[in-house]
Amino acid sequence: MGSEDKGLGFFKEIGLASNNIGSYINGQWKANGSSTTSLSPSNNQAIAQVTEPTLQDYEEGLNACNEAAKIWMTVPAPKRGEIVRQIGEALRAKLEPLGKLVSLEMGKILPEGIGEVQEIIDMCDYAVGLSRQLNGQIIPSERPDHMMLETWNPLGIVGVITAFNFPCAVLGWNACIALVCGNCVVWKGAPTTPLITIAVTKLVAEVLEKNNLPGAIFTSFCGGAEIGQAIAKDTRIPLVSFTGSTKVGLTVQKIVNERFGKCLLELSGNNAIIVMDDADIKLAVRSILFAAVGTAGQRCTTCRRLFVHESIYKDVLDQLVEVYKQVKIGDPLEKGTLVGPLHTRSSVENFKNGISAIKSQAWKILTGGSIVDSEGNFVQPTIVEISPDAPVVKEELFGPVLYVMKFQTLEEAIILNNSVPQGLSSSIFTRRPEAIFKWIGPRGSDCGIVNVNIPTNGAEIGGAFGGEKATGGGREAGSDSWKQYMRRSTCTINYGSELPLAQGINFG
Amino acid sequence: MGSEDKGLGFFKEIGLASNNIGSYINGQWKANGSSTTSLSPSNNQAIAQVTEPTLQDYEEGLNACNEAAKIWMTVPAPKRGEIVRQIGEALRAKLEPLGKLVSLEMGKILPEGIGEVQEIIDMCDYAVGLSRQLNGQIIPSERPDHMMLETWNPLGIVGVITAFNFPCAVLGWNACIALVCGNCVVWKGAPTTPLITIAVTKLVAEVLEKNNLPGAIFTSFCGGAEIGQAIAKDTRIPLVSFTGSTKVGLTVQKIVNERFGKCLLELSGNNAIIVMDDADIKLAVRSILFAAVGTAGQRCTTCRRLFVHESIYKDVLDQLVEVYKQVKIGDPLEKGTLVGPLHTRSSVENFKNGISAIKSQAWKILTGGSIVDSEGNFVQPTIVEISPDAPVVKEELFGPVLYVMKFQTLEEAIILNNSVPQGLSSSIFTRRPEAIFKWIGPRGSDCGIVNVNIPTNGAEIGGAFGGEKATGGGREAGSDSWKQYMRRSTCTINYGSELPLAQGINFG
Amino acid sequence: MGSEDKGLGFFKEIGLASNNIGSYINGQWKANGSSTTSLSPSNNQAIAQVTEPTLQDYEEGLNACNEAAKIWMTVPAPKRGEIVRQIGEALRAKLEPLGKLVSLEMGKILPEGIGEVQEIIDMCDYAVGLSRQLNGQIIPSERPDHMMLETWNPLGIVGVITAFNFPCAVLGWNACIALVCGNCVVWKGAPTTPLITIAVTKLVAEVLEKNNLPGAIFTSFCGGAEIGQAIAKDTRIPLVSFTGSTKVGLTVQKIVNERFGKCLLELSGNNAIIVMDDADIKLAVRSILFAAVGTAGQRCTTCRRLFVHESIYKDVLDQLVEVYKQVKIGDPLEKGTLVGPLHTRSSVENFKNGISAIKSQAWKILTGGSIVDSEGNFVQPTIVEISPDAPVVKEELFGPVLYVMKFQTLEEAIILNNSVPQGLSSSIFTRRPEAIFKWIGPRGSDCGIVNVNIPTNGAEIGGAFGGEKATGGGREAGSDSWKQYMRRSTCTINYGSELPLAQGINFG
Amino acid sequence: MGSEDKGLGFFKEIGLASNNIGSYINGQWKANGSSTTSLSPSNNQAIAQVTEPTLQDYEEGLNACNEAAKIWMTVPAPKRGEIVRQIGEALRAKLEPLGKLVSLEMGKILPEGIGEVQEIIDMCDYAVGLSRQLNGQIIPSERPDHMMLETWNPLGIVGVITAFNFPCAVLGWNACIALVCGNCVVWKGAPTTPLITIAVTKLVAEVLEKNNLPGAIFTSFCGGAEIGQAIAKDTRIPLVSFTGSTKVGLTVQKIVNERFGKCLLELSGNNAIIVMDDADIKLAVRSILFAAVGTAGQRCTTCRRLFVHESIYKDVLDQLVEVYKQVKIGDPLEKGTLVGPLHTRSSVENFKNGISAIKSQAWKILTGGSIVDSEGNFVQPTIVEISPDAPVVKEELFGPVLYVMKFQTLEEAIILNNSVPQGLSSSIFTRRPEAIFKWIGPRGSDCGIVNVNIPTNGAEIGGAFGGEKATGGGREAGSDSWKQYMRRSTCTINYGSELPLAQGINFG
Repeated sequence: MGSEDKGLGFFKEIGLASNNIGSYINGQWKANGSSTTSLSPSNNQAIAQVTEPTLQDYEEGLNACNEAAKIWMTVPAPKRGEIVRQIGEALRAKLEPLGKLVSLEMGKILPEGIGEVQEIIDMCDYAVGLSRQLNGQIIPSERPDHMMLETWNPLGIVGVITAFNFPCAVLGWNACIALVCGNCVVWKGAPTTPLITIAVTKLVAEVLEKNNLPGAIFTSFCGGAEIGQAIAKDTRIPLVSFTGSTKVGLTVQKIVNERFGKCLLELSGNNAIIVMDDADIKLAVRSILFAAVGTAGQRCTTCRRLFVHESIYKDVLDQLVEVYKQVKIGDPLEKGTLVGPLHTRSSVENFKNGISAIKSQAWKILTGGSIVDSEGNFVQPTIVEISPDAPVVKEELFGPVLYVMKFQTLEEAIILNNSVPQGLSSSIFTRRPEAIFKWIGPRGSDCGIVNVNIPTNGAEIGGAFGGEKATGGGREAGSDSWKQYMRRSTCTINYGSELPLAQGINFG
Repeated sequence: MGSEDKGLGFFKEIGLASNNIGSYINGQWKANGSSTTSLSPSNNQAIAQVTEPTLQDYEEGLNACNEAAKIWMTVPAPKRGEIVRQIGEALRAKLEPLGKLVSLEMGKILPEGIGEVQEIIDMCDYAVGLSRQLNGQIIPSERPDHMMLETWNPLGIVGVITAFNFPCAVLGWNACIALVCGNCVVWKGAPTTPLITIAVTKLVAEVLEKNNLPGAIFTSFCGGAEIGQAIAKDTRIPLVSFTGSTKVGLTVQKIVNERFGKCLLELSGNNAIIVMDDADIKLAVRSILFAAVGTAGQRCTTCRRLFVHESIYKDVLDQLVEVYKQVKIGDPLEKGTLVGPLHTRSSVENFKNGISAIKSQAWKILTGGSIVDSEGNFVQPTIVEISPDAPVVKEELFGPVLYVMKFQTLEEAIILNNSVPQGLSSSIFTRRPEAIFKWIGPRGSDCGIVNVNIPTNGAEIGGAFGGEKATGGGREAGSDSWKQYMRRSTCTINYGSELPLAQGINFG
Repeated sequence: MGSEDKGLGFFKEIGLASNNIGSYINGQWKANGSSTTSLSPSNNQAIAQVTEPTLQDYEEGLNACNEAAKIWMTVPAPKRGEIVRQIGEALRAKLEPLGKLVSLEMGKILPEGIGEVQEIIDMCDYAVGLSRQLNGQIIPSERPDHMMLETWNPLGIVGVITAFNFPCAVLGWNACIALVCGNCVVWKGAPTTPLITIAVTKLVAEVLEKNNLPGAIFTSFCGGAEIGQAIAKDTRIPLVSFTGSTKVGLTVQKIVNERFGKCLLELSGNNAIIVMDDADIKLAVRSILFAAVGTAGQRCTTCRRLFVHESIYKDVLDQLVEVYKQVKIGDPLEKGTLVGPLHTRSSVENFKNGISAIKSQAWKILTGGSIVDSEGNFVQPTIVEISPDAPVVKEELFGPVLYVMKFQTLEEAIILNNSVPQGLSSSIFTRRPEAIFKWIGPRGSDCGIVNVNIPTNGAEIGGAFGGEKATGGGREAGSDSWKQYMRRSTCTINYGSELPLAQGINFG
Repeated sequence: MGSEDKGLGFFKEIGLASNNIGSYINGQWKANGSSTTSLSPSNNQAIAQVTEPTLQDYEEGLNACNEAAKIWMTVPAPKRGEIVRQIGEALRAKLEPLGKLVSLEMGKILPEGIGEVQEIIDMCDYAVGLSRQLNGQIIPSERPDHMMLETWNPLGIVGVITAFNFPCAVLGWNACIALVCGNCVVWKGAPTTPLITIAVTKLVAEVLEKNNLPGAIFTSFCGGAEIGQAIAKDTRIPLVSFTGSTKVGLTVQKIVNERFGKCLLELSGNNAIIVMDDADIKLAVRSILFAAVGTAGQRCTTCRRLFVHESIYKDVLDQLVEVYKQVKIGDPLEKGTLVGPLHTRSSVENFKNGISAIKSQAWKILTGGSIVDSEGNFVQPTIVEISPDAPVVKEELFGPVLYVMKFQTLEEAIILNNSVPQGLSSSIFTRRPEAIFKWIGPRGSDCGIVNVNIPTNGAEIGGAFGGEKATGGGREAGSDSWKQYMRRSTCTINYGSELPLAQGINFG
C-alpha cells in the first residue's frame, strides 16, 4: 500500500516513499542493512519501510566525512553561514509537511511538531549571524613585542546522537552550530523516527549538492545501538553530542573519554515547579498543565514534580485535577488534541511499570493512572500525591505523571527541588522579588534552567540549553555554546628578537 | 637537628618547623596519620617531618568545608576578591622564602622557584579584578514581558589535586579563581612537597582568620592516593581539578563522572618545537634549551620533541649540543645553576628505564643519557636522534630528554606535531606570516598552546592554560576559565500575566 | 518617454516609474515639494522624476515615527529580527535590478552595484542573529542581596543621512542594526540618488505592511540640506548617523550636540598604502589599482596616498602606470568597465579644480589628470608624484587621484601615514611579522581600518567600520557597533530589606 | 602659622605643607603662577597656600607628557597594571589622612571622605585585573587566508578635568583605567581643592619615580579655567574627560570636537526617586535622606526630585520631614555629623538664589530653606512641595533641596522622571516585579543609572557610571568603559597570495 493511500500525500514533498534508504554516506543514499518499519504511535501501524546501514556503510561514511572535514574547515566561517542559511530556507519551505511528519512519526501534537521544525529554522537564522561572531580574543601580553591570541578552530567532525522525543530539533541545536563552526556532522537519529532523519537529511543534502560541496559534510544514519557505539568509539570524532537517558549517557561518556574524546550530554531531567503562596494561581495551573502533559510527558523538561505551598495546596490541586479532566487525548494530527500517544509500545509498558511502583509508594493517585484502551500508545495524564522521600520521585518516568508535594517555606522548597540527582529544569511561581532573586541565586535552584512564572519546558534558542548533575552538564543552542564545538588555542607570537620570559623569570 | 642547623633559617618566616602538621581542617592544624619525611632532591636528606591526615581527618575537614560553603557563596564576589587580594599581599611579603622553599623541596632552580610563587601572586591580582567581572548576561527574549538571564553561581566546593612539579602555582591558578567565584577550596598537594603545601596554606589561613571567616573555606591536606581518591569520590565536591599523568587523570575522571561530578584535567604533554628553514636560529636554540632542560624537563610544557627543517638540521643540532654541554647542573639554590635534580629517586629510576627503551629504538644519543653520580637525583640533559615512528616518541618521559627529528615541509611538520596522543603545547620558529597563520589555524597545531618564536613553556596567566586530547581538555588561569568554577543557569522571568510560548507554539 | 523606452524594463520590478514620490511617511507615499530629476552620471540624461517632500511632510512623518517608536521598542528583539530577515529576503529577490539601479544612478560599475546591495543583505542576515544577542550583563554587586545589571534599551528613533557614493549600503549598516535594536529609522538618502532611496524603501515598506506593523517604523525622505538640517535639530531623534564630508559632519555634530543628541559620524578619509621593500609587488599593484580607481576614487576608503619604499619605488610605479593605462573607462553597466563616471558634473568640476591645485604643488603627473571628453562625467585615473608636505596631500579629493611618495624606513612610513587629519583606512604590504605587528600596534597606523596585504577599501561587515580623528570616530556594521544604537543603563536592584552602601560607607 | 598649629599634623604624612607647589610637570614640582589659598568650607579660613602653574608651565608639562606617552604606550599592559597596583597600595597606606583631607578641604563628612579615597583604591585593584583583559577580538573573515582582528591601542594622552564635589574619586575612575590602557594622564583638579590634587599626585609620582618611569606619565595641575581651556584646545590630547556642569561641558565638547578630539562628559544630574504605593517606606525614607542630604546635596547623583504615590504621600512626607529635623549639621570631621557645609561661599549664594526662585514657584517649603548662621557655608536641608511644571524643577540646584511631587500611576511617574533635560540617575521603590522590569525596560527610566530600592547615589565601580541626554553620555569606571580610553582598529591581514574581495565583488 503506497503512502498516498494512507493520506500521506505530503510524503513526496519531503522526499519520502514507501521504502526509504536510511543513510546518507559520502553524498549518496546507500544502506546495506536490514529493513525496519516506522510505526505510527497513534495506531502502531506501519508508515513506511527504511533500510538501515551496516557498520561497513558507517565506515565508508566516516571515511568520506573525514576527508570532507579537511575541506569544510577551511571554508571561511561566513561562507559556512551562507550554507546554513540556505538550509534554513529549505526547511522553511517545508515547515508544514515536516511538522506533520514529526507529529505522525513521533506522536506529538501538530502545533508541537511544527514548533519543533520552527526551532531548527530559528537555529539556522541564529547560526548565520554567529558565523561572523565566532570570535577569538587578543589578550594583552606581559612581554614586549609579543601578541597573545586565543583562537578557535573547528574540531573536525561532531557526532550527534538524538532521541525520539525531539527527533529533529536537537539535531538543529547541534548541527547548525557545529556546521558554522567548521565541523562536519555525523548524525544518528532515533531508531524509531527514521523518516524524520531521512527527510531532514534530504533537505540538507540538496543544499550541499547545489553548492558543489561534498555531501559527506553532513553524514546521516538511521539505526540503533550499533551505530551509536561506533560513533562513541570512533577516534575520528572528537566530540559526541548525546541526548538520552542518564544511564546510556554515562556509558557513552566513558567510552568517549577513554579515547580522549569529549561529550556534550543532554540526559535525564526530573523537573520541579514550585508554587508559592503569592503565586498567580491561574498562570501556574496553565503552566503546570503544559509542562506536565505537553508532549505526553515525554520532554526532558517535562514537569514531573510539583511543590505547592500548603496554604494554597488544595486550591491548586482542585484546579489542576479539573483541567486534567478536560484535556483531549487523541490523534496528534487532529485539531484540539492536547495529548497524543506515548511514542512506542515499550513506552506504555514502562508507564505501566511506573504506575505499579508508584502505587506501592504513593499516598493517592488523584487522577489518571491508566492506559487508554486503543490501537495506539495512549495513557492517561496522571497526578499523584506522594512523599518527597518516595524512591520513585528521584527517578525520571518518561510519561505524563506528576508527583505533587506540599511545603511551608521557600528554603524548604528549594531543598526539595535540589534533592534529586537530575538538574535540568525548574520553575517557581511567585510575585516577590526577594523570592525570585533567591531562586536564581547561589543558594537557589541548582538546575541549568531556572524559570520564574513560566513552565519548566519551552526554552528559547538564544539561551544555553542543558542541565547539571545527572543531566550531564552539556549546553546547547545559544549563549557561548558554540565554544564546545571548537577547540581553543592560546597562541603567543613573539615578533621581536628577544626572549623575555613570563613571571619575569631569568633563565641562563 | 633543627631546621636552623641546616641553614633553614627562613623556615620560621613561613611558619615551618622540624615537625609539621599536614592538614588544615575546619580552621585548625590537625592530623592524626603517620609521619612522612620531606626529602631534598639535591641530596635525598630529610628537610623536615610532616604528620599526614587520616581519612577521619579528611571527613572532619570536608564536613566543615561543606558548612563554610554556605557562608562563603553568599559573600558578595567583590568582598571575596578583597580576601584574595590580602592573600596576594601575604604571599608577596614572603616571596623570597617561599621561592627558596620551592627550590629546596621540589628541586627547581631558585629563579624558577621564585617565579612560581610570583605566578600565584599574579593570579591573586588578576582574580581581584575578576571578582567584579564574573558577569552573567541578559539575553533578549522572544516573548513579551519576559526577561532571559544567564546567571553564574558558585559550585560550592572545588577540589584541587596538584602535582610535585608545580607544587604551588597550580594551586594558585585554581584556588584564586575558585575563591572569587564563591567556592571553598579543598587542596591536596603532592605527597613529596608537603612543606610547600603547609607554608602556602598557613598564609591563606591567616588571612581568613584575620577577616573572621571560617578557616574551612580553605581546607588543605598533605597526603597521597588515599586522600586523592576520597576527593574523587566525594559527592560534596562538584568539581575536581586534577593535575598529573594521563593515566591517573583518566581514572580520576571516571570516578568523578560516575557520581555526576566534573573534572578539570591538566594531564601529560608531549610538546614539540618546529624550526623552519627561515627561523632565527639563535632565538630557537635558546628557546629549545629553556624548553627542554628548564625544570630538569619536569614541566608539563617541557619540549620533548624537536622537528628541524632538513636544510638547517645540522646547524641547529650542532649549536644545541654545544649549549647543552655548557649547562650547569647542580644545587638549584646556587646561583648559575640551570639544571637541578629530578624530584625523587623514582624519577631517576624512571629516567633510567626511559633511556634503556630509547637505546633500543633510537638512532643515536647526541649528548647526555646518563645519571650523574651524586647523593642527589641528578641526570644529564639528553638529546636523542630518533624516528618519529619510534614508540617512545609517543610517550611522556618526565625528564630532560629531547627527541630530534627532521622534516621537509610545514605540512609534514604539523602532521608530526599532531601525531601523538597528547595535545598540550607546541611551538614554531619561523618568520613567514603564511606559516604563522597556518600554524595557528584550522589545519595547524592541535594543541591548547600554540606558540610562535617562543618556547613551549612559560605561559602567561592572562591566557587559558591547558591542552587537548590526552592532556585532558581543561583550561585554567585566564580568559574565561572562571566559568568552569561556576554553574550556569538560563533563567527566564515572566513578569507579565500572559503565557506566550517559545517557537510560537499554541498549547490548548 | 517611459522608462521602458530607455531600457529600464527592470524599473517596474523594483517599484519605480517615470514619476516617483520621494517620501514614505506614516506608511504612505506622499510628498508635496518640488520635483527633481535623477540624472545618469554616464550621460547626464534624466532617468526619472522624483517629487521631494516639504518640511510639513517631514513633520508629519516624524510625528508618526515617534508614535511608531513606542510600539516597535516593545516588540521582542528576536521578533524584530524576523522582520529584518524578511527585509533581507525581499532584497535578495531583487538583487540584480537593485544592483543595476545603483550602477545606473550612482555610476559605479555593475559588480560594485550588486556588491553594494549584497552588503545590505549580508547586514540583514547578520542583524537577525544579533537580535538574540543584544546582551546586557549581570555584574557582581559588592552589596549582599543586590543585583547589578547593565541593560540595553532602544533609543527610539535613529536618523540616517547617507551619501551618494554608497547610496544604500550605508543605510543597510545603520538600519539593520538600528531596527533589531528596537529603533525606528528616519532615512534621508543623497539628493542625487533618490531612485535608490525609493526602491529600497519600497521593499522595506512592503515587509512592514505584510506584517501589520506601522509603516512609520521606517520613514524615508529624498531631499537635500533642508531635510538634513531638520533631522539634525530634531529632539525626537537621539542619534543621528551621518555619512559625508568632515566639514558638513562637524556642523551636524554641533547642532546635534547642542540639543544633547548623539552623532555617529563617517566622514572624510585620506587613506594610504605603504609598500615595503619585501612586499609582494604584484599583489600590491593589483590592490592599489582597486583601492585607487575602484568606484572612480569615490569611496571614503579610496586610496589617495601611496608610500613606496625607495628600493622598489621605480618598479612599483612602472607597473602601476602600466596597469592604469589598461583600465577600461566607460559605461558602468557594461561588462569589462573598471572605471565609471564621477557621480555629478560638480564632481568633475571639483576634480578639475583639484588637478589645478595639484599642478601647482606636485612634481609630476605620471598618468591621467584630464577630463574625458563625453556627455558623462568621466575623468582619467591619475597618478601624481608629490612631496608629503604639499597641502593638497592633507585633503580628500573625491576622485581617482593617487599621490605617490617615497620612504626609507617603516617608522618614517607610519609617521607619513598618520600625518593627515583624517584617520579612516590604511594598508601595508609586507611579509615581515615584525612590520605587521608594529603596524597594527600602539605606535602603528592611527586609523580605524588597518590592513595588511589588502587594499584600503573593501571592508567586511563583521568588523566595525569607521575611522578616527577628522573621520569622526563612528563605528558601523559589525563588532559591538550595535551598542551605539541603544542606551545603556546600570541598574542596581536591592531585593533585601537592608541598605548597605557602596565603598563601605556608613551614613547615619 | 604652620599646619601643625591648626591640628593638621596629618599634613606631613601626605606630603603637604603651609605652602605648596601646584603642578607636577615632567617629573618635577614646579609652578610659576600666582598663589592661591585653600579655604576650609567649615569656617572659610585658610588651610594652606598653593602656587598655581602658568600656561608656560602647562606647555612644558605637556611637552614632557607627549614624550612620555611614546614610552608608556609600549610598556606591556600587565606591567602598567603593576604600576597601578603600587599606586593603589600607596593610597591604601594613606587612606585615613587622605580621607581627612577630603573632608577638610571639600567639606563632605569624614566617612564620605574616606569612602571617596577607598573608591580610588577599589579602582586601582579593578584596573590591575583589567590590565590583562583589555582584549581585542579575532573576527571570522569571509575571505580565505585572511585574518580579521579588532585591536585596541592607547590614545596617547588623556586629559582629566575634575570637579570639587569628588575631588579625587573621579580622577581615580579615569586615571586608573587610562593608565592601564597605556595613556599618560593630564589632570586638572578643581580650583578650590588644590591640596587634594597635590596630595594624590604626590603618591602617584612616588610610585613612578620608584619604578624609574618618567614622572610625566602623570602630569598634574592645580588651576582654573585657563588650564582647563588649554587642555580642551590641545591637539596632543585626543580624549578629554570632563566632570562639571552641562553648560561648561557643552563648551568643552565644542572646542574638543572642533579639533577632532573626543570628550567623555559627566555633567549635571537632576535625579528622581519614585515611591510606589507598595514600597517599603522605611527603606525608602532612609534612602531618600541619604540621597538628598548626603554630601550636602552636592553629588551629581543627589536626589533632587521625589515622586510619591498619592496613597502614601502624606505618610512618606511626614516621616521624611521628621528625619530631616534630626539630621546633625556641622563640622564634617566630627563624628555624628551627617551634613557638612556647602563647598564655597558662592555655593551658599547660589543656594540663596535658588530658594528665592523656589519661593516664587513652589507651593510650600516643608522644612529648611535657610542659611545657617555661622562662619562656614552651612545651609539647611530643604524639602519643597511643588508642581512638576515649575521651571526650577527642570534645573540642577547644587545643594540639599528636594522637590516633592505626587503621582497616581507608574506610567505617570516614569513620564515625570524622564521629563527633565538631565538623565543621570533615578530610583524606584516597589516590590512588584512587573514595576521593576518595566522601570528598567524600553519604556522605563531614560537615565544612565536606574536603581530599585536603593538611593540614586552610591554607585559601585564595577558598573559603568554616567548618564544620558544633558548629562553628557559618558561612562566611567567599570563595564567596558575602558574602550573609551583606547582607539579601536579593524585589521585585516591577508597571509595568502590571492586577493579575494568582500561581498564577493570581482574587480578587473
